[in-house]
Amino acid sequence: MPPPRSPLAPERFPEMPEVAGVRLGVAAAGLRYRGRSDLLLVELAPGTTVAGLLTRSSVPGHPVAWCRALLPRGQARALVVNAGNANVMVGAAGDAAVRAEAEAVAALLHTGPEDVFVASTGVIGEPLPVDKITAALPGLHDKLGSANWRAAAEAICTTDTFAKGACARARVGATEVTVAGIAKGSGMIQPDMATMLAFLFTDAALPAALLQPLLVAACDRSFHAITVDSDTSTSDTLLLFATGRARHPAPSGREDPVLAGFRAALEEVARELAQQVVRDGEGAKKLIAVTVRGAVDDASARRIGLAIANSPLVKTAIAGEDANWGRVAMAIGKAGEPVELTRLAISFGGHAVARDGARVPDLDETPVAAHLKGCEIEVEVEVGGGSGAATVWTCDLTEGYISINASYRS
Amino acid sequence: MPPPRSPLAPERFPEMPEVAGVRLGVAAAGLRYRGRSDLLLVELAPGTTVAGLLTRSSVPGHPVAWCRALLPRGQARALVVNAGNANVMVGAAGDAAVRAEAEAVAALLHTGPEDVFVASTGVIGEPLPVDKITAALPGLHDKLGSANWRAAAEAICTTDTFAKGACARARVGATEVTVAGIAKGSGMIQPDMATMLAFLFTDAALPAALLQPLLVAACDRSFHAITVDSDTSTSDTLLLFATGRARHPAPSGREDPVLAGFRAALEEVARELAQQVVRDGEGAKKLIAVTVRGAVDDASARRIGLAIANSPLVKTAIAGEDANWGRVAMAIGKAGEPVELTRLAISFGGHAVARDGARVPDLDETPVAAHLKGCEIEVEVEVGGGSGAATVWTCDLTEGYISINASYRS
Repeated sequence: MPPPRSPLAPERFPEMPEVAGVRLGVAAAGLRYRGRSDLLLVELAPGTTVAGLLTRSSVPGHPVAWCRALLPRGQARALVVNAGNANVMVGAAGDAAVRAEAEAVAALLHTGPEDVFVASTGVIGEPLPVDKITAALPGLHDKLGSANWRAAAEAICTTDTFAKGACARARVGATEVTVAGIAKGSGMIQPDMATMLAFLFTDAALPAALLQPLLVAACDRSFHAITVDSDTSTSDTLLLFATGRARHPAPSGREDPVLAGFRAALEEVARELAQQVVRDGEGAKKLIAVTVRGAVDDASARRIGLAIANSPLVKTAIAGEDANWGRVAMAIGKAGEPVELTRLAISFGGHAVARDGARVPDLDETPVAAHLKGCEIEVEVEVGGGSGAATVWTCDLTEGYISINASYRS
Repeated sequence: MPPPRSPLAPERFPEMPEVAGVRLGVAAAGLRYRGRSDLLLVELAPGTTVAGLLTRSSVPGHPVAWCRALLPRGQARALVVNAGNANVMVGAAGDAAVRAEAEAVAALLHTGPEDVFVASTGVIGEPLPVDKITAALPGLHDKLGSANWRAAAEAICTTDTFAKGACARARVGATEVTVAGIAKGSGMIQPDMATMLAFLFTDAALPAALLQPLLVAACDRSFHAITVDSDTSTSDTLLLFATGRARHPAPSGREDPVLAGFRAALEEVARELAQQVVRDGEGAKKLIAVTVRGAVDDASARRIGLAIANSPLVKTAIAGEDANWGRVAMAIGKAGEPVELTRLAISFGGHAVARDGARVPDLDETPVAAHLKGCEIEVEVEVGGGSGAATVWTCDLTEGYISINASYRS
């Protein structure tokens, strides 16, 4: 029986438009699950550029190693993704399986395997039944379509309780461009790299050398600013494909003002997907936004925010709807970042509980308690007089996380 | 109702001998708890030296700041500890409370407040009712005794489900010396500093300059090698007092062979106390020893060990008695330490599950499953051909941790 849909899930999968130059299809290859699709193929128009961020794990999956080798070329013609088996730590057979997938796709598209990006998610350490994938690919290729984003997002889910998608539009000069993305992930989520699998697509015409810094910048305030359980996946993969079908003038560089709208749209899609991952955090009942201000710089603020967001004691307190600001103070301290103790301030939902390094005199916890009963919790912290600020997102830690993870073999 | 005694607790509090020059007493000051002692006073003979390690938190408690200022003097005449209120983040009143405690003890012992060490544990951010402490001290001073270690260990407990004590004897030359210690802690436990409160006492005659490196070395394989939940307390305090009452020849330095026995005894007491803290980990049902070998050095091995020991996904898998070595592989990867993928090996209780970077062929999980049903779990990892090795201890992550921490305000 699938787990119930997260109480923090969006009401519905968004209406998502076509992206010119992108064709999608899914199939049920029967890798692990029964009665659902588990294989996604994306065909990309000739000339598509690509940027990506991959897990920093020192035990990366075999598909991650493949993508890492391909990314410097900056071009792509296809993406193939399976759910149910992560293809991690299976030795030489793992690398051979990735190559077999890429070659099978390349043959269908009359291109080279070096143009085919591969991602896998699911159980670690079991050989990938790659024959099932290569057997399913020809039929899948025959029915590629333009805008079945929801089916694509569903095909890559594992413990996810809802499919994740987001899109935005922007103008580059006078030309409208689209950014659309899908993601999966709900556990083994730590922000210090792209988180689990996320694939973004745009019809903008941008060289890979420009695409990569745009993606990195968008990540800082999205995929790098979320955490569910501090665990970093072996398979984290974030790829951004630009088909170049939109006819707009070529930007002069990443700071060209003509890109302002695109940058905002890219960040919006990335942040929306990242937040959906947190909303699907295993066992989550509350979405928590932690905002840190007054740090020595933005990076320091983010490290403090993540220390708070990763603290099991903070996350259990919020699960218990307890305005336990002492644990927030503890977590600030454990980050090891510069803090001006006499300026330390902590609020929940805009209601100050500590100020100038001590509890607010005659604190009335009533409005704080009311805020904590909600589903979207705000923790705001001031750590000094600096200009560094950051917001990170996480979820509460509940008995549901334990029961999911004490039984599921991922 | 107090929580039930941890299933991992030792059968009983150990028989612990007197330490010459140490007198102990406890009282019920009524700080937070009813019907139990919550205040410990230790009188130390004139000439007592002291070494210590304090939390690295950038939001340290007021008693931590006091101890940090005193430690360079290297001498002590008393220790006063309370449970129920951590005296953290209460502003100038917090520092004043520490000074009032120290002055009250100093007056009773006819010494200066700079000879009085202070520690507090309990709730953060509430003013310490120091008048209750100073009112209880004279009566407490009148009934100081020699070996009521168990009462001392009980007085400093908070969420602990059992009192923690350990002792060992050694010879320095021909002279027998004693090391005895007590500790408290069961949550907010992260190893990157002395963990919660631990106080060690010896009658050895060692200058503070010698005592400090001996304590640091003992910590590396004890208090710095445990974790319950990755959270670092604001109040972590480890102090080692040496009364000098044992008449042995003065060692020439920390490497003097005459100290070999003392070093071993100190490490034994520290490790035993540290393990008791893990055995009392909130909600713990299994004690987990993670041993890492083949790392580039011992420090790298310990970082990998702690990444495994702190991983919620590993800890929940073990709670579920699941031989989920993929999650161990994930945790190894997230440490970011050098790893030789093709040499990676993982065992549970001596039974190999992965070798040479992949699953053991035709793996029979039966003996592994049997091992995981026990209360003491061993995870062994080889990460390459280096000589670095380390063992760290943790406990499993259960629904009990959530239910304890979603209700207790610490």
